[in-house]
Amino acid sequence: MTENRNYKPTILITNDDGYYAGGIRKLISLLRPFGRIIVVAGEQSMSGMGHAITIKTPLRVKTVSKEPDYEEYICNGTPVDCVKLGEQVVIGGKPDLLVSGINHGSNASINVIYSGTMAAVIEACIDGIPAIGFSLCDYGLNADFSHVDEFVDKVVRNVLHHGLPEGICLNVNIPSNDSGPIKGIKVCRQANARWVEEFDSRQDPRGVDYHWLTGRFENSDVSEETDQWAIDNQFVSVVPVHYDLTAYRALDEIKKWEL
Amino acid sequence: MTENRNYKPTILITNDDGYYAGGIRKLISLLRPFGRIIVVAGEQSMSGMGHAITIKTPLRVKTVSKEPDYEEYICNGTPVDCVKLGEQVVIGGKPDLLVSGINHGSNASINVIYSGTMAAVIEACIDGIPAIGFSLCDYGLNADFSHVDEFVDKVVRNVLHHGLPEGICLNVNIPSNDSGPIKGIKVCRQANARWVEEFDSRQDPRGVDYHWLTGRFENSDVSEETDQWAIDNQFVSVVPVHYDLTAYRALDEIKKWEL
Repeated sequence: MTENRNYKPTILITNDDGYYAGGIRKLISLLRPFGRIIVVAGEQSMSGMGHAITIKTPLRVKTVSKEPDYEEYICNGTPVDCVKLGEQVVIGGKPDLLVSGINHGSNASINVIYSGTMAAVIEACIDGIPAIGFSLCDYGLNADFSHVDEFVDKVVRNVLHHGLPEGICLNVNIPSNDSGPIKGIKVCRQANARWVEEFDSRQDPRGVDYHWLTGRFENSDVSEETDQWAIDNQFVSVVPVHYDLTAYRALDEIKKWEL
Repeated sequence: MTENRNYKPTILITNDDGYYAGGIRKLISLLRPFGRIIVVAGEQSMSGMGHAITIKTPLRVKTVSKEPDYEEYICNGTPVDCVKLGEQVVIGGKPDLLVSGINHGSNASINVIYSGTMAAVIEACIDGIPAIGFSLCDYGLNADFSHVDEFVDKVVRNVLHHGLPEGICLNVNIPSNDSGPIKGIKVCRQANARWVEEFDSRQDPRGVDYHWLTGRFENSDVSEETDQWAIDNQFVSVVPVHYDLTAYRALDEIKKWEL
């Protein structure tokens, strides 16, 4: 689509930290030069929502801004709802690109499974829309996004130029710049790490137990081919992601069972 | 573990339709002969919650029943929370098996992505627990589960006997018996189908728009190797599922980009 220099791609932007987050504001400012921008983001932070959709309550969309080439809406749904509403209610068709983020916090490795940011990306991918999720490895509300410009620009430019193979989207994680400058971009696989859960259990003033979910990240997959290695070594990680969860390597073994 | 005839496996049961649903009640009755049963289910139906976790509010666990070899708890969390609470707060360790369901409605094909039932299964799998999700292809609250016994029994027996390869869990879908008897069990891959969204848009009494998510299932992947083909042809589908979302086939292509 970049072949036609007059064509302005329509870019749908969403996130899972809510419309006011620093990450989505940065993303909007970086993507405005690329085309017509439509923002549909949640009123509230929706971190950890995974691929949740809203089916028991109705969704509402509120117009925040409507200018030439820039429209912004907020809604009461999840990140996946934002994509569906963006396509069906706001645009009335498919955008040329969906970009989600920039998430405050890593979505590398097993975090992709819990991520609302990446759920929005996967949802767009299912609908045949090229889609990218960006995350910064810093959970802070006031995280420093000053070093991300070049990497967001490069990835978006490449996707607009090359497109993406059918059924494939990108999970991009950018290290924080606390530990020095970024060394470059690495195309990787998802590291096989996990969260070891711990609950912080307390008693409320009436003596009833309640539990806060906490946990620590545990990575035993130290291969240099992984996204976690890339981030730990100050590289931006780019993982091509698909939504076919079939474990092909197990098909033959399970076919031998007496079922 | 079936080698030692005196060993009673601990089986954690959850679902995403809530503790009162017919599907989980059926599952409990079928699994009680297999060992020590711990049920941790949601107070409410959590359909469409995907891999959501609860991080902004505390979780509470209520004891419903505590007998020898049978304990039942309800909590205010998502299906993934139920697994985490089951392990950490209730059992204080890993069960021998996690079984989720029986879901009221199909989780075959792309439905696996939105499914709370399968999110619980994948969560257990991440923690190294053999895990199975069962779904009946009938959304009705009063769905008829009378024909499922033999298939649940066969799959559970095989998993307890063979175990599952590391990082792999099972997504089992059972057709309704409206269209005649079940022909058998097929080990399959996930069909590449999708939901085509439509919103039913209305106005509230104050004239403000709201939108209900609806949609129709569209399957262009008609291969006999798929779970959707199996179900459509009265076979129970068994798909081995993993949580590595890396699209390996795209790694080389994207590595050629100028990043």
